[in-house]
Amino acid sequence: MDDLYTSLNDHLPPELAKEAIRILYGAPCQKLELCEEVLNLSQSENFDLKAFRIHAAEEQTRSRRVVRIGAIQNSIVLPTTEPVAKQREALHQRIGTLIHAAYLCGCNVVGLQEAWHMPFAFCTREKQPWCEFAEHAFDGPSAKFLCQLAQKYNMVIVSSILERDDEVHGEVIWNTAVVISNTGKVIGKSRKNHIPRVGDFNESTYYMESTIGHPVFETQFGKIAVNICYGRHHPQNWMMYGINGAEIVFNPSATVGGLSEPLWSIEARNAAIANSYFTVAINRVGTEYFPNEFTSGDGKPAHKNFGNFYGSSYVTGPDGTRTPGLSRTKDGLLVTEIDLNMCRQVKDKWGFRMTQRLDMYAKSLNEAIQSDYQGQTIKE
Amino acid sequence: MDDLYTSLNDHLPPELAKEAIRILYGAPCQKLELCEEVLNLSQSENFDLKAFRIHAAEEQTRSRRVVRIGAIQNSIVLPTTEPVAKQREALHQRIGTLIHAAYLCGCNVVGLQEAWHMPFAFCTREKQPWCEFAEHAFDGPSAKFLCQLAQKYNMVIVSSILERDDEVHGEVIWNTAVVISNTGKVIGKSRKNHIPRVGDFNESTYYMESTIGHPVFETQFGKIAVNICYGRHHPQNWMMYGINGAEIVFNPSATVGGLSEPLWSIEARNAAIANSYFTVAINRVGTEYFPNEFTSGDGKPAHKNFGNFYGSSYVTGPDGTRTPGLSRTKDGLLVTEIDLNMCRQVKDKWGFRMTQRLDMYAKSLNEAIQSDYQGQTIKE
Repeated sequence: MDDLYTSLNDHLPPELAKEAIRILYGAPCQKLELCEEVLNLSQSENFDLKAFRIHAAEEQTRSRRVVRIGAIQNSIVLPTTEPVAKQREALHQRIGTLIHAAYLCGCNVVGLQEAWHMPFAFCTREKQPWCEFAEHAFDGPSAKFLCQLAQKYNMVIVSSILERDDEVHGEVIWNTAVVISNTGKVIGKSRKNHIPRVGDFNESTYYMESTIGHPVFETQFGKIAVNICYGRHHPQNWMMYGINGAEIVFNPSATVGGLSEPLWSIEARNAAIANSYFTVAINRVGTEYFPNEFTSGDGKPAHKNFGNFYGSSYVTGPDGTRTPGLSRTKDGLLVTEIDLNMCRQVKDKWGFRMTQRLDMYAKSLNEAIQSDYQGQTIKE
Repeated sequence: MDDLYTSLNDHLPPELAKEAIRILYGAPCQKLELCEEVLNLSQSENFDLKAFRIHAAEEQTRSRRVVRIGAIQNSIVLPTTEPVAKQREALHQRIGTLIHAAYLCGCNVVGLQEAWHMPFAFCTREKQPWCEFAEHAFDGPSAKFLCQLAQKYNMVIVSSILERDDEVHGEVIWNTAVVISNTGKVIGKSRKNHIPRVGDFNESTYYMESTIGHPVFETQFGKIAVNICYGRHHPQNWMMYGINGAEIVFNPSATVGGLSEPLWSIEARNAAIANSYFTVAINRVGTEYFPNEFTSGDGKPAHKNFGNFYGSSYVTGPDGTRTPGLSRTKDGLLVTEIDLNMCRQVKDKWGFRMTQRLDMYAKSLNEAIQSDYQGQTIKE
C-alpha cells in the first residue's frame, strides 16, 4: 500500500469511502491545482506530490493570513559507506530539487525531516563516522546551503540537523532544529526536549535533552515552533509550544514501521486539536543499510538495517482536519494551504485554551515532583 | 455504516484490509468466545456485543493481572416528556440488563456513559425538570441500584451521574463519577475537571469545574480513574491521572457526530499511548428529542434535538492497540480482556514516564501562569 487514503478511496464503495474518510480525516481537504512544471518535475525526479487546502472561515476584522506549507520527506541518496562529505552533498542536491518544487508550488514555509542531512545512524552505537555529520547550527554547510535557498525563494525553512556546538560550549552534539528566515538569515534554534531510549533509537548515547525551553519563532508567515521526533509522544511538550503562541508546529521525525506506524496518525493530530494550532508531521522514507552489523536489544541476531521508514507525512489543522499522508515508500512533497486565522477561530469555538486550568496543573505538577509525593489515591 | 472496523473488513480486499487495520488499530485484538446465553440476550434485547483480548507478555516475577472491562453505551429509553422518575426507572431496567450481560461475559469492571441515568438535556438551557435528575452520589437511587448489582455480580462499576451535593455543600449540582467497589460500597467520587462551552454543550450553565483534583481509586481489579467527557480534550488532565498511578482511565462521554466524530478515535487513544495505561472511551447513542425548542448558537432555526450521539465506544491499550468500536447507532456492550501488567511493560519499552521531565514543566507552567508572562518568542 502506498498510502492509506488513496487505498480507501480506490477500494471502498463511494458512499462508504466518503463516510470512512470523514471519520478518519475530518472535514474534506480541497485539492490544489499545481503548475505543469512541478507536475513534470515530480515525474522526472520520482517524488510523490500532493497538495491540499484546509478551509478556514472569513472574518470581518482580520484579513486572511494564507500560508502554504511544504513538508518534504526523503530517503538517503548514497550508500552509508560513502565519504561523509559526498553523502551530504548528494542530500543537498536532492533537497535542493524538492525545495525548488516547493517554490514552484508557492510554499512560504518548508519543513524537512529530522537529521535530513545524514543517515539515521544512531542504531549503530558507533560514534564514527556518524558524529562527523554534525554541523554548526548557523554556519555549517547545511545552514549555508539552506540560507541561500530561503532568500532565493523567499521562504522560511525549518531544518532539523545533528548539531555540533561551538568550542565555548564544549563542542558537544545536540539534536537541533534551525529556523531560517525568508531573508536568508538564521532566526534561531530549538532543540529536542525528549530523547528516546527505545529499540534502535539509541539517541541518548549521542546527545542530551535540550536546555533551551520551548522557543517560538516569529516569522513573516506565522509563529513557528519545532517539536523534534520523540517529543511528539509527550503532550506537555506540545502544550508549551502552544502556550508560547505557536501557530504551526513542525514535528521532524525518523521512525520505522514495526515500532510506531499505528501511533503516527494519532499524536501530531491530537496535538493540533488540543492546542488549536497546525501540526506538520514529517517522517523519512526507505531502508538504510550500515557498514557494520549491530543488534537491536530484542534478542534477535545482528543485522545491518533496522527497518523501514514509512514516510506518511501529513498536516493537521486546529479543528482536527488532516490531509491525506504522503507515500509510505517514496520521497515526497506535501503542500498544504492554510489560513493562520483558523487557530483563533477554533480557540473561540472549542474553548480549549480558556478551559485549560493551567494554574491547577502548575500546582499539581509542583506537588508531583516532590520526592515524598504520595499521589492522590482513594481506597475502600 | 454501523461501525468503521467492520466496514473496512467487509469491503477492502483481504490483504489491504489487514494492512489498513494494522495502521489504524495497531496490533490485532483476539476475539473472545462468549457463552450462548449472552449471545441470545444480545439478540433478544437488541444490543451490540463485541469482545476482544488485548495481548500482553508473560513475566517471570509477576503473575498476570487479567481483568475484563465492560463498556456500556445506551440510548435513553422513554421520551423526555415522561416523568423524571419513570425515565430513570426505565434506564435502570435497561442498564440492569446490560450489566447482567457484562456479568455473563465475566466482566470485573464496568463503565457507563456520562450522565447515563438521564437525557443529556443541557442543550435546552432549561433548569427544570432536568435538575431533578441530579442525585446524591452515595445515597441516590442510581447509586443504590448499582451498589446492589456490584455486590451481586462481584464487579466494580464506574457510574457517571449528575450529582446533587448535600445541604452542607449548598445543594449545588456537579458532573460526577462514582466508583463502586465489588463489595457493593461506594469507594469515592471524581468530578469533571473541564466544562465545555461549545455548541449545544451548555454545561457551564449547570455546574462548575471540579475542585477535588485527579483521584485514582484502588480497586481489586486495578487502579481506576475517570476523565469525564470534555476532559479528554485536555492532555494535562489525562496526564495527572497517570501521575497518580491510574492503570485504567474511563472517559464517560456524550458527544454528537457533527461536532466531534473525527476527533473521537484520536484523543482517548493518544492518552493511552502518552500515559502507558488503558483508556475506555464510552459515548451514548441515538437522538434525544426535548419538549421545547431551543437554538444552538449557530444562526440556525430553533429545533428540538441537537444531533446524533454516535456511540463507537472503544478501549485502547498502553501500546496504542485499540479494539474495534461498538455500533454507531445501537446500545452495546464492549468486553475487553486486558492484563494490567502491560502498563509497566510499555513504560519499560517506550520510556515515556522516565523521559517526561515533569520538573521542567512544573517550572514552565508556573512561569506561564504569571500575569506578566511574555512567552518564549524569538524574532529575527
